[in-house]
Amino acid sequence: MGAIAGDDPRTVAALGEFGLIKALSAWLPPDQRALVGIGDDAAVLAAPDGRVVATTDFLLEGRHFRRDWSSARDIGHKAAARSLADVAAMGAVPTALLVALALPGDLPVGWARELAAGLAAECAVAGASVAGGDTARASSVLLAVTGLGDLAGRAPVLRSGAAPGDVVAVAGPLGPSAAGLALLSAGLTEGPLVAAHLRPAPPYDAGPQAADLGATAMIDVSDGLLADLGHIADASGVLIDVSAETLRPPAALLDAARAVIHEDPSSRTSVGASPEPPHSAREQALAWVLTGGEDHALAATFPRGVALPPRWTVIGEVRQGRGVLVDGEGWTGQAGWDHFTSAGG
Amino acid sequence: MGAIAGDDPRTVAALGEFGLIKALSAWLPPDQRALVGIGDDAAVLAAPDGRVVATTDFLLEGRHFRRDWSSARDIGHKAAARSLADVAAMGAVPTALLVALALPGDLPVGWARELAAGLAAECAVAGASVAGGDTARASSVLLAVTGLGDLAGRAPVLRSGAAPGDVVAVAGPLGPSAAGLALLSAGLTEGPLVAAHLRPAPPYDAGPQAADLGATAMIDVSDGLLADLGHIADASGVLIDVSAETLRPPAALLDAARAVIHEDPSSRTSVGASPEPPHSAREQALAWVLTGGEDHALAATFPRGVALPPRWTVIGEVRQGRGVLVDGEGWTGQAGWDHFTSAGG
Repeated sequence: MGAIAGDDPRTVAALGEFGLIKALSAWLPPDQRALVGIGDDAAVLAAPDGRVVATTDFLLEGRHFRRDWSSARDIGHKAAARSLADVAAMGAVPTALLVALALPGDLPVGWARELAAGLAAECAVAGASVAGGDTARASSVLLAVTGLGDLAGRAPVLRSGAAPGDVVAVAGPLGPSAAGLALLSAGLTEGPLVAAHLRPAPPYDAGPQAADLGATAMIDVSDGLLADLGHIADASGVLIDVSAETLRPPAALLDAARAVIHEDPSSRTSVGASPEPPHSAREQALAWVLTGGEDHALAATFPRGVALPPRWTVIGEVRQGRGVLVDGEGWTGQAGWDHFTSAGG
Repeated sequence: MGAIAGDDPRTVAALGEFGLIKALSAWLPPDQRALVGIGDDAAVLAAPDGRVVATTDFLLEGRHFRRDWSSARDIGHKAAARSLADVAAMGAVPTALLVALALPGDLPVGWARELAAGLAAECAVAGASVAGGDTARASSVLLAVTGLGDLAGRAPVLRSGAAPGDVVAVAGPLGPSAAGLALLSAGLTEGPLVAAHLRPAPPYDAGPQAADLGATAMIDVSDGLLADLGHIADASGVLIDVSAETLRPPAALLDAARAVIHEDPSSRTSVGASPEPPHSAREQALAWVLTGGEDHALAATFPRGVALPPRWTVIGEVRQGRGVLVDGEGWTGQAGWDHFTSAGG
């Protein structure tokens, strides 16, 4: 398919379904480990462990991304990251993705090529490849990405294994994606936080690492730290108490909070050039840390006394009881992100 | 989740994302073979063969089904069948599905429950279960279903293995789904052909059977017989010649063709009560057999001399060359179904 260049002036509709599939096959690097890759009724992948980890996630235009904010390459990165992080959160190494991709017919071929490049690049970070998929036409961009992974002999780390006495630790960023989204909503389209929203960088290899360290429970932070720790607490039948002191927002989040509060014309604290009360910016930044989703950090519980590598920050403890507390009290700020009931995209 | 009955008057939006996931988990029968099923970051499935077959397919409202024609249960059956048939076409036994499901928020909870029932029932036919998924809200019903399967020591049957001298055979129906769609389009909403369109019945176990019989290539007929044989011919670098005599439409398809031609006010043959020329009905019925997709019959090539069970009908032969012929000539009727370039839903 050398005839289809990234600057091909045609639309994906002109290419047709079979043409698009052939083009995607040519753009995506071959999966060296796939026994059967793109182009047959199904892929065949090695599962030397005798088990396979499998997860599927939507990334829908208008709900999970906006095309005026995210480039095609960003969207490819983000779609891949969501599923790859879920695989890592089981303690597995991601091996392959299957990508169901629906596109408006009037999109340029080059847009699809950039999307494929983003998918391939994010896969490469995690050590995986795109091994198959499906295409369709739709009025907006729809992706449903299936991630597969290999446990390499490890026991899967579930949400249900946390026990009183365990410590709670996190690897990866908390809050940058939510802060970046707030900056974008305020009209600020540059900077590392915006980049973190457009292309989250999950710490994939921290998942198998946590399993090897004896993690008792693990989850990827996609709905917000408190909401996702709540899933562990529910599944394990325990109480999780996190320490706000260990979750102090970094300066970049505080700066972003000040910028957003300053930019927001509806904010009571936006009074001309006078600085907003720092208390409010700290609250906003802490809310991003505690409830911002989509950074795909990994949160895990470990038996007390496990020596954790520096990338894992202890943020709390597991006790008898139910639910999630911050410094021993319920968090009264904004709730976690429920993709289904939340308004808008 | 006993509190959520099928006649729950609430909407899925009122249930929320986590409520819907819990409800779906309760409605779907547990996957006895899943090592980790619904409710964690990913499922963990046994792959005793050391390989896993994996495929993903969209089923999108307005493109692949209409809610005024298909019940929620029909849609569940059809979404499952598409992926399960792809797994079978590799020569594998389907084991599990992952279902990414986006719904409009105003759908009643009972609608989602019926969809889950259809998914579960079709899985049961193939010996598989729903092991995981994702939910989201969308303005129309979107499904992306991933099928996983086990080869149990068999070599996967690819599209690329057909060789000159092989015979071409088909197991399962050809044409009923397309005929049923035509009847629905003509306002006729009852009968076995309409049912075949709404709930295709792929011959799942014929896939592993063909592999055991030594099939050299196989595909599931989702785009139309000639188009899908074309995929085998392309991948194998061969010519496939099918015999129209072996593909004579059954009486039910001829009756449907007469009914559709009679009902279609734009048809030149629809002249009051006088019967249309039978020639035209035969042509329409043959077109459904040769180009109708979505029945998910299995088409395979076998070495000449293999004793095929009765469910496999020999319809042609493989020769040196390229492409697909009918009785030695190119088919001049309507082309196969290209999901991407075809108009409308």
